Amino acid sequence: MRIDTISTFPRMFDSVMGASMMRIAQEKGILDFAAHDLRDWTHDRHRTTDDEPYGGGQGLVMKCEPIFEAWEAVAALHPARPCTVFLSPAGEVLSEALVCELAAEERLLFVCGHYEGIDERAYTLADRTVSLGDYVLTSGELASMVVIDAVVRKLDGVLGDEGSAVDESFYDGLLEYPCYTRPSSFRGMDVPSVLLSGNHAAVDAWRREQSILRTARLRPDLLATANLTDEERARLDSLSSEHDASFEGSGAR
Amino acid sequence: MRIDTISTFPRMFDSVMGASMMRIAQEKGILDFAAHDLRDWTHDRHRTTDDEPYGGGQGLVMKCEPIFEAWEAVAALHPARPCTVFLSPAGEVLSEALVCELAAEERLLFVCGHYEGIDERAYTLADRTVSLGDYVLTSGELASMVVIDAVVRKLDGVLGDEGSAVDESFYDGLLEYPCYTRPSSFRGMDVPSVLLSGNHAAVDAWRREQSILRTARLRPDLLATANLTDEERARLDSLSSEHDASFEGSGAR
Repeated sequence: MRIDTISTFPRMFDSVMGASMMRIAQEKGILDFAAHDLRDWTHDRHRTTDDEPYGGGQGLVMKCEPIFEAWEAVAALHPARPCTVFLSPAGEVLSEALVCELAAEERLLFVCGHYEGIDERAYTLADRTVSLGDYVLTSGELASMVVIDAVVRKLDGVLGDEGSAVDESFYDGLLEYPCYTRPSSFRGMDVPSVLLSGNHAAVDAWRREQSILRTARLRPDLLATANLTDEERARLDSLSSEHDASFEGSGAR
Repeated sequence: MRIDTISTFPRMFDSVMGASMMRIAQEKGILDFAAHDLRDWTHDRHRTTDDEPYGGGQGLVMKCEPIFEAWEAVAALHPARPCTVFLSPAGEVLSEALVCELAAEERLLFVCGHYEGIDERAYTLADRTVSLGDYVLTSGELASMVVIDAVVRKLDGVLGDEGSAVDESFYDGLLEYPCYTRPSSFRGMDVPSVLLSGNHAAVDAWRREQSILRTARLRPDLLATANLTDEERARLDSLSSEHDASFEGSGAR
């Protein structure tokens, strides 16, 4: 996958894109990444990318002219037409489903604001406008790195262990079960005995139950669309009608 | 505010924490930040921070022993007791309200996983467990940087312009109105004439209406808790009962 970014702080990407999974994805040739400086498409000596808002008010607004010029130049750097992504609190809220849609694209191009808003007319370049969630960030660079991380880990060959992307939160629409490693006892806290039993069927059943109970306790909103069997739904309904402690009581500790 | 992070890739923070608002907040003495390497609290020659999951399965699990040791050492570096934050898809979903709660703390300490899960027992250290949203990231470092960006911008004196944090999305529970800057006409797209009128009352009324209409069109779920007047709610109800295009038609373009 080819990914380009256009922003006023292109060096902010360096230490994230140069480490860990992102570095490996580039070394393996799965990800081809470049961060471009919006200021390269300004024409005044101050390399101005923002200006005062029409109608007055505090803060500055990113100008649409350098954004259009940058988009046209960056889009032409690679033969594939980019899916252009803007980050905005007014965008579609990021979800695993949206991540999978973006991961299916051949090429992504992120246009990142910073501090201030972007001239509304620049959004006509957007194929997708994405929001990380209902909170405000200073750095569109950081927001785009979150989307890039979520997308790149879905690409074939990036996660060494194919299981890691399946056996995790939001698979089947549920939160992940709790996990444990050595030692079996630490400061009076013991690993649930079923996990030490060597009985794989019992381990699988316990983990499935823990995923469901934990989701019911922490994120009941996810259950409506989770992929549960009729039997699991029936069981959950009977548990739900009792006290909250029944979920806790059936938990690991 | 003092912020510490504990993770296996502490250098990932460098280019984000060293630029723009984050750098300025540190230079002004408003933010005191340090990223700590979890491997400094391991005791084997391979500096092992993870191990195989009890009960089997793919992927590794972060061990609780170095996390406890690191937490104790880092907590003792500063007199204020830290509010300890873990990042997890099972956590409270980040919102502006949660950001404000975290911004009111004297000190935050983030424990960041990477790739794999964290031994469940380590979560007993958490005061808050936070999720960015319903998607999975490789890098807990990146997730914590998002929370830190959202929090630091709320701290007094960080945003030069006090208005910037008020006049933005989620203020009053609404999305921000569209903004424009020069030129007034660009590639056939004109700035809405009211913004060029010099009539401040008309500009304010237009912006308020745009915030409401845009929220109704893109994020109707936010309207239930938005801070609207009775008159605004009545007007919105009458608009809502018509076609979607009525929102578009009353928009800027």
